[in-house]
Amino acid sequence: MHKVGIVGYRGYSGAELVRILERHGHVEPFLLEHREESASSPLRHPQGPAVLPCDPEVIKKEGLALVFLATPPEVSMQLAPPLLAQGTRVVDLSGAFRLQTPENYKAWYQETHSQPALLAEAAYGLPEFCRERIPSARLVANPGCYPTAANLAIRPLIEAGVVDRSAGIVCDAKSGVSGAGRKPSLKTSFCEVTENFSAYSILRHRHVPEVLQVSGLEEREFSFTAQLLPLDRGILETVYFRAKGVGSAEELLAVYEKRYASEPFIRLYNPGAVPDLRAVARTNFCDIGVTLDAASGRAVSVSAIDNLVKGAAGQAVQNMNLMLGCAETEGLL
Amino acid sequence: MHKVGIVGYRGYSGAELVRILERHGHVEPFLLEHREESASSPLRHPQGPAVLPCDPEVIKKEGLALVFLATPPEVSMQLAPPLLAQGTRVVDLSGAFRLQTPENYKAWYQETHSQPALLAEAAYGLPEFCRERIPSARLVANPGCYPTAANLAIRPLIEAGVVDRSAGIVCDAKSGVSGAGRKPSLKTSFCEVTENFSAYSILRHRHVPEVLQVSGLEEREFSFTAQLLPLDRGILETVYFRAKGVGSAEELLAVYEKRYASEPFIRLYNPGAVPDLRAVARTNFCDIGVTLDAASGRAVSVSAIDNLVKGAAGQAVQNMNLMLGCAETEGLL
Amino acid sequence: MHKVGIVGYRGYSGAELVRILERHGHVEPFLLEHREESASSPLRHPQGPAVLPCDPEVIKKEGLALVFLATPPEVSMQLAPPLLAQGTRVVDLSGAFRLQTPENYKAWYQETHSQPALLAEAAYGLPEFCRERIPSARLVANPGCYPTAANLAIRPLIEAGVVDRSAGIVCDAKSGVSGAGRKPSLKTSFCEVTENFSAYSILRHRHVPEVLQVSGLEEREFSFTAQLLPLDRGILETVYFRAKGVGSAEELLAVYEKRYASEPFIRLYNPGAVPDLRAVARTNFCDIGVTLDAASGRAVSVSAIDNLVKGAAGQAVQNMNLMLGCAETEGLL
Amino acid sequence: MHKVGIVGYRGYSGAELVRILERHGHVEPFLLEHREESASSPLRHPQGPAVLPCDPEVIKKEGLALVFLATPPEVSMQLAPPLLAQGTRVVDLSGAFRLQTPENYKAWYQETHSQPALLAEAAYGLPEFCRERIPSARLVANPGCYPTAANLAIRPLIEAGVVDRSAGIVCDAKSGVSGAGRKPSLKTSFCEVTENFSAYSILRHRHVPEVLQVSGLEEREFSFTAQLLPLDRGILETVYFRAKGVGSAEELLAVYEKRYASEPFIRLYNPGAVPDLRAVARTNFCDIGVTLDAASGRAVSVSAIDNLVKGAAGQAVQNMNLMLGCAETEGLL
Repeated sequence: MHKVGIVGYRGYSGAELVRILERHGHVEPFLLEHREESASSPLRHPQGPAVLPCDPEVIKKEGLALVFLATPPEVSMQLAPPLLAQGTRVVDLSGAFRLQTPENYKAWYQETHSQPALLAEAAYGLPEFCRERIPSARLVANPGCYPTAANLAIRPLIEAGVVDRSAGIVCDAKSGVSGAGRKPSLKTSFCEVTENFSAYSILRHRHVPEVLQVSGLEEREFSFTAQLLPLDRGILETVYFRAKGVGSAEELLAVYEKRYASEPFIRLYNPGAVPDLRAVARTNFCDIGVTLDAASGRAVSVSAIDNLVKGAAGQAVQNMNLMLGCAETEGLL
Repeated sequence: MHKVGIVGYRGYSGAELVRILERHGHVEPFLLEHREESASSPLRHPQGPAVLPCDPEVIKKEGLALVFLATPPEVSMQLAPPLLAQGTRVVDLSGAFRLQTPENYKAWYQETHSQPALLAEAAYGLPEFCRERIPSARLVANPGCYPTAANLAIRPLIEAGVVDRSAGIVCDAKSGVSGAGRKPSLKTSFCEVTENFSAYSILRHRHVPEVLQVSGLEEREFSFTAQLLPLDRGILETVYFRAKGVGSAEELLAVYEKRYASEPFIRLYNPGAVPDLRAVARTNFCDIGVTLDAASGRAVSVSAIDNLVKGAAGQAVQNMNLMLGCAETEGLL
Repeated sequence: MHKVGIVGYRGYSGAELVRILERHGHVEPFLLEHREESASSPLRHPQGPAVLPCDPEVIKKEGLALVFLATPPEVSMQLAPPLLAQGTRVVDLSGAFRLQTPENYKAWYQETHSQPALLAEAAYGLPEFCRERIPSARLVANPGCYPTAANLAIRPLIEAGVVDRSAGIVCDAKSGVSGAGRKPSLKTSFCEVTENFSAYSILRHRHVPEVLQVSGLEEREFSFTAQLLPLDRGILETVYFRAKGVGSAEELLAVYEKRYASEPFIRLYNPGAVPDLRAVARTNFCDIGVTLDAASGRAVSVSAIDNLVKGAAGQAVQNMNLMLGCAETEGLL
Repeated sequence: MHKVGIVGYRGYSGAELVRILERHGHVEPFLLEHREESASSPLRHPQGPAVLPCDPEVIKKEGLALVFLATPPEVSMQLAPPLLAQGTRVVDLSGAFRLQTPENYKAWYQETHSQPALLAEAAYGLPEFCRERIPSARLVANPGCYPTAANLAIRPLIEAGVVDRSAGIVCDAKSGVSGAGRKPSLKTSFCEVTENFSAYSILRHRHVPEVLQVSGLEEREFSFTAQLLPLDRGILETVYFRAKGVGSAEELLAVYEKRYASEPFIRLYNPGAVPDLRAVARTNFCDIGVTLDAASGRAVSVSAIDNLVKGAAGQAVQNMNLMLGCAETEGLL
């Protein structure tokens, strides 16, 4: 049994981490209390993981092999260095270590990165495309939820050369509200969200550079809009492109089948069928379906994930499994 | 006071028509009972418009000037001819008379049109672009909900020549469930829709030819996906295109401002701001906002309407106002 | 035209007030800015009521006859005295002036009331039972949302003596989230509310004393639970009692019919039928239906209102109409 | 490994059964196809349990030890006899075999029971109160969702004699829409349910006799209203009664603690705290909390379950575990 800790376990991603790790056969989770808060329970005889202070010394003394940071970027930048310095490995769920250069971070997050060396060192935790570096990494940057669904849909197409890049790629993304985190705000208040739908960060969402970095697209080729669905969890992205060199949806599908033949968390749909959010809710799957008008080359890929699982906690556990030598699917099927 | 009738008043569009007409200052609405159904009310002393049989003779005898058909296409094709023959004008809310040729109808509706002469005669009821023919029309084909939002966002751009059509236009459309009508089906059952989001009719939705017809785009230039939101009413469409000949969002916005300067039901947003569904709920407005990345020309227009108002009943009343010589905004502000 | 002002116009009740007053034929509304906030609009050419500072001198100089306070109780206690002192009439939508004694206020609000004289003077604004004092009142305390639905269902029964009070009365109340106000909090965050339902303030909700005050029940006779529905607006209360002296649901219904014969905002249902929230959404109606098991006397009344209309802004306008000598239903039908 | 079959696996309860049984360590589930329907999957390489025809001979030949009937009562009455006759055990999730006499069935279901002998034989599958008969039963009648939550809250109080029955007990019940089944109907259509809440079957719901049968209450003592929540899954029941012989909420809670000390699926809350639906979603727990006003004896118990788990499929598996000699909690924690 590996001991692992979770900072930010009260947030939506952190709570999902706890839920997954509690049924994982090879780890013992601990809740790491970062700030002083009462941890009262309405339950008469509550059960659950033990709570420890989020103190590097305690973490080391208790023998925790790995710590998940389900915290905002600025908190992750502060917590990661002392943990890594003492040999505790880190999977960070924030955006703190996902981009490769401090310049890129500054451009998209509008702040100076305080740990540029870690930025360079961090392994990007999208196993389907970056599996090699993860097992030995000290620090894994867990991908953003939007880029996970986008890259899994787009990169195989780019790799296979079946996209006419001159026409650009459009990714119209829709997310459930849990993607915005648990901190109360007017934007995520029930009465503002129910019976509503809205677009935000049009063309300039912070997650865009992760897509460019993994897919190889240039910013000028990629139009991305994030939108808020009146539901709890799930991301669906509708990707529009002009196909080249393929004559049928079957051929396009074959591109995905070849690339993902041995991937346990990618499920493909028959030509013309596409996933909905229900298909992936509370799973670590990314489901993909594709449609093509062969005459014009107009093509649409639809990818769907649960933003809290494959888009956050589930993928973080997938990374942990690789780091600790567990089966990659342990706790996730 | 003009007497007008509503067939299909129990459906969502029909009920919205009743609601609007009841507060209209210059018409007296009648409910036209098409099939035998009990019209019981749980209310002790119910009030509301009088009910008449949907019988052309009765309609003529009662002096109804105009009848709204909030019925499926095949029912509209059957009801419209005898009404028109006796001089009763018709606003049809179905897809029966929206396309210009029987060939086009056959291609998208997969059925042979039984009234090709009426297809040729019908005036397309999108006042912002087809206002001239409506006042004198015997038969007005009220536009589809998706094409209303699409054409209002797209046609001014095409007219002004600010779109690089070689890259194609993407319209990613999302609709509330009331757009699917009131007839029970698994697809619109609560448990299937709540906490879910799904795409359907990708690239081949029946509403596509209405967009082509009004905007002037070719099918190969236009990628359209319809998607079902877990909410009652509202349509939001995110339109992606590559702009040419404009250097700023302000310039793009100016295209809309010029075109819509005297339109009472179009509202424009400041650069970078976009409408959400709440802004237009229960109104006849179409709200539009635009974003542009000047360096690359990537541009996004967002348009929003209430699918039951500007997308159906409200626009039908707008057409009726033009046909009967009422103020175009009567009952709609 | 009477000029009237609204403090707290950004809140849900305040915004609903603005919406109603804008279509009222005999008043001109002004938005009163209490605290410094930017009032920017995404709309290119926004329209709406004029904004004034919430300053008694300005209010007097502009000739406002009446001010609505859609503010928290402590703010209402602070704003009302100077307005009343200068002759501006006040309709307060908070709980500040609803109870009759400072002792009662202290017992249920856990705070000392700072304006006991106004507490004694205020007219309770439930027109169906307190219509006499409202026209001449300087200060009207607009009822709470829960007590409005409860008292309209319960008091006619108590007055008519058809309740066996020895068995107690149960009022199981359910409210939409807008009843909790617009201030962000975890309890009203989308992800906490959707797909959830919860009870709170069991037996000790602040609104209980308003029910006792109007219905004449003793606290020991009345069990009240408030519950949060995953929807925006609406209150439904299920009232259980043991009937006496009535032999059928018709007879129970007759009690309501007699009492409410001339009330414009009460609608009654046929025996066995009951209202749902949709029936009253966006209206000022209170709908009531009743069921009786004659053999055992077990009886259930169901009452439904829109918490933002009859439960807040609509009733406030109903009170304003009485105060200013307008038709009681003006702007509300 | 025990082989078990599921009839009605496409319905909400049936699908939940499949989900639970797939992760159960000691059974192999089979889908039993009752009527001819296409079982297509959008997935490219679908996986899941094998499908067999719902034919007693096949079921016997394949060696299925037990069959779940997630079917309407009339179908269950038809399918159960041949299965039982050949020695296949049955857990029926419908209301067909829950009541003890054909007279009672006729009174509440308005139909003559076709299998009165099985009605007399069936074991009522509420393990917390009927555990003795279940292990050896041929036929288990899985309890209704509403009665499960009601009886678990009420019977310990009646047994302990802490309820003043002269004042009656009120059970105000609220259920998610999945409780109404998957068959499309207007009542469960999204647009009718969202932003709505409604009461139905007031005082005469079919589930009432199950509560009377288990709790020992007389019908005249028990007022029950069912209500439809705008959410997918969950039942919360608010139970009002007048307590006697107890001086504090702690004492009332002690009644539950004593009764449920060794029950694995009952969780109790600290005094004053009560469960919400989220606490039990996708679990087999029934959570209970209690509030008391000691001065007047007014008391409120709140119980919550997931209607598809403890209210249907989970409890069915709990019963199966008892019947097959598995650990009672297998597959359910």
